Amino acid sequence: MTTVQVDTPGGSYPIHIGPGRLDHLAHSIPQDATAIAVVTNSTVAAHYAQRVQAALEQTGKRLMRIELPDGEAYKDWQTLNLIYDALLRNRLDRRAVLVALGGGVVGDICGFAAATYMRGIRFLQVPTTLLAQVDSSVGGKTAVNHPLGKNMIGAFYQPIGVEVDIDVLATLPQREVSAGLAEVIKYGLIIDADFFAWCEQNVAALRRLEPAALAHAIRRSCELKAQVVSQDERESGLRAILNFGHTFGHAIESGLGYGEWLHGEAVGCGMVQAAELSQACLGLDGASVERVRALVQAIGCPVQAPDLGTSRWIDLMQVDKKTEGGTLRFVLLPEIGRAVFQPAPEAALRAVLERAATHPA
Amino acid sequence: MTTVQVDTPGGSYPIHIGPGRLDHLAHSIPQDATAIAVVTNSTVAAHYAQRVQAALEQTGKRLMRIELPDGEAYKDWQTLNLIYDALLRNRLDRRAVLVALGGGVVGDICGFAAATYMRGIRFLQVPTTLLAQVDSSVGGKTAVNHPLGKNMIGAFYQPIGVEVDIDVLATLPQREVSAGLAEVIKYGLIIDADFFAWCEQNVAALRRLEPAALAHAIRRSCELKAQVVSQDERESGLRAILNFGHTFGHAIESGLGYGEWLHGEAVGCGMVQAAELSQACLGLDGASVERVRALVQAIGCPVQAPDLGTSRWIDLMQVDKKTEGGTLRFVLLPEIGRAVFQPAPEAALRAVLERAATHPA
Repeated sequence: MTTVQVDTPGGSYPIHIGPGRLDHLAHSIPQDATAIAVVTNSTVAAHYAQRVQAALEQTGKRLMRIELPDGEAYKDWQTLNLIYDALLRNRLDRRAVLVALGGGVVGDICGFAAATYMRGIRFLQVPTTLLAQVDSSVGGKTAVNHPLGKNMIGAFYQPIGVEVDIDVLATLPQREVSAGLAEVIKYGLIIDADFFAWCEQNVAALRRLEPAALAHAIRRSCELKAQVVSQDERESGLRAILNFGHTFGHAIESGLGYGEWLHGEAVGCGMVQAAELSQACLGLDGASVERVRALVQAIGCPVQAPDLGTSRWIDLMQVDKKTEGGTLRFVLLPEIGRAVFQPAPEAALRAVLERAATHPA
Repeated sequence: MTTVQVDTPGGSYPIHIGPGRLDHLAHSIPQDATAIAVVTNSTVAAHYAQRVQAALEQTGKRLMRIELPDGEAYKDWQTLNLIYDALLRNRLDRRAVLVALGGGVVGDICGFAAATYMRGIRFLQVPTTLLAQVDSSVGGKTAVNHPLGKNMIGAFYQPIGVEVDIDVLATLPQREVSAGLAEVIKYGLIIDADFFAWCEQNVAALRRLEPAALAHAIRRSCELKAQVVSQDERESGLRAILNFGHTFGHAIESGLGYGEWLHGEAVGCGMVQAAELSQACLGLDGASVERVRALVQAIGCPVQAPDLGTSRWIDLMQVDKKTEGGTLRFVLLPEIGRAVFQPAPEAALRAVLERAATHPA
């Protein structure tokens, strides 16, 4: 097991990474917890709920399970309310602890429930997808979607710990492995050129889920994310670079309807678009753009953006939280391993978006 | 104008208290705000919305108004969603500022919207009821009600400032003045025996809204509240004493249906019950209990609790956020001016509750 420490003004906590972590969750529950509610979804529950509950029974504490419907389409107020209802009906108090057992949707929604139930209770992240393990479970972003935009309602709220069991990836569909790898290579692109090169060299091992390669990729991703959020918990500056590819990606998700493409798939494709925009705005060299496209393709993500129509693209991107005063801003790469956050000239943006129209998906 | 400073880990901000503050709101809007949304209700809007908007127009910033239906019954997710919808439809970004113009319901719901819109934007409190001026606008508690309990969904989230215009109390119904005075005398009861005595001596002047008396009562209440929340922003200890009378009061509000009694009225009555419980548990002397009852009556609040039935009382109180591990805990007074937070023996509690049954309201 490896530990990566996250330190933010809102809380410090460990990320434990290793095989078999699901069986050791009892150690992560604070002594003074009055009850534990495992929040999960139907798919994950079928695989792991019993094992997790057996592990948590070792605490001797009152234990309950809240099962949510599976999918990004359910990351909304109605599903959040299922959690509130269950907590209130069972009279869980302020010292109860929530355990988010699942992917990014479960983690985000359970985290937001923890942030807002009785003005805040503790929660533990137990991510079961690669994407959640390397990204969404770390750093305290919680949210639900609103019909008018993704993750529009949320809070910065840190968990008390993150337990990453790399064994669970064995039951993950290949498509979700690809989606998770998109976030892994993102860290290389924005902060660590060596790690990007390592990903290029190890992409086959990663897709085969070889434990040594996976463990390294997850640990390095968590370290890089922890480094960024430690410096800027509330995304007032640096943290924005973690959204590389996300402004395009969110427009894809919301334009096609949440759940059509996986979040990581949309981000993968969005990173190719953001690399193209970096070429137009910052002179990122063509060979680097090709390396981005080649690796996104190699991990199994789409590289061709859907044809949403240029004006709809811009419209969808303007709802994004990174907008300020109506100006669209983007995370762009002057070179692989370094990112900046700045407005992009509209002509350059339109040129990138028009490629989506001329090459129908 | 007087200023009381609030310092908490979650933010430091001034409370400005004086006449005519509504005309000076432009000074409280940060330079970098991209837009201002005034969140208010239909009743307050009729009195003050135009004046407030004229004052805010001096900033030269984009300005909008979001009008909510008036009443505790609307402090729910649906009303909160009216705010989210308006903000998203008008594309307000992370640097927008909300202005909560109204009483406790508007302040709580607007504060929670600010805490959760795009994971947190800035907001200014402009309380227009006495209760909001001395209590709910200060200290960063924000919330909406859930069908299963009052204020169950919320966040600790500090405003960037509080503007208390004492002139606005002239348009406040007498019943709401009484409800606000209940929270004023609460501060005397829990921390400041001299202030309690001052309230006894000045109750007539306060009910007549004499400016000097009002200004003193509001300033002292804000100072005492600021002192408590500075030491314990998230209610892990000391802050709980601010809930004196509230466990009974919340049960009254939720038992009779929100809006039947005003929050301050329920708290006024709840303080009499809590004083009786303090007599039974801590030996608070009978003369002090009578002083509490007499002053609650003198400010115009009910002193006779409604007959909810003892088991329903206990049931309703158990949903309260102060419950831990199923044990009911209460803020109790060993003497006037000093409060403790502890469990109460069930027999003592039942004796207090049975008085509600034997003396029908």
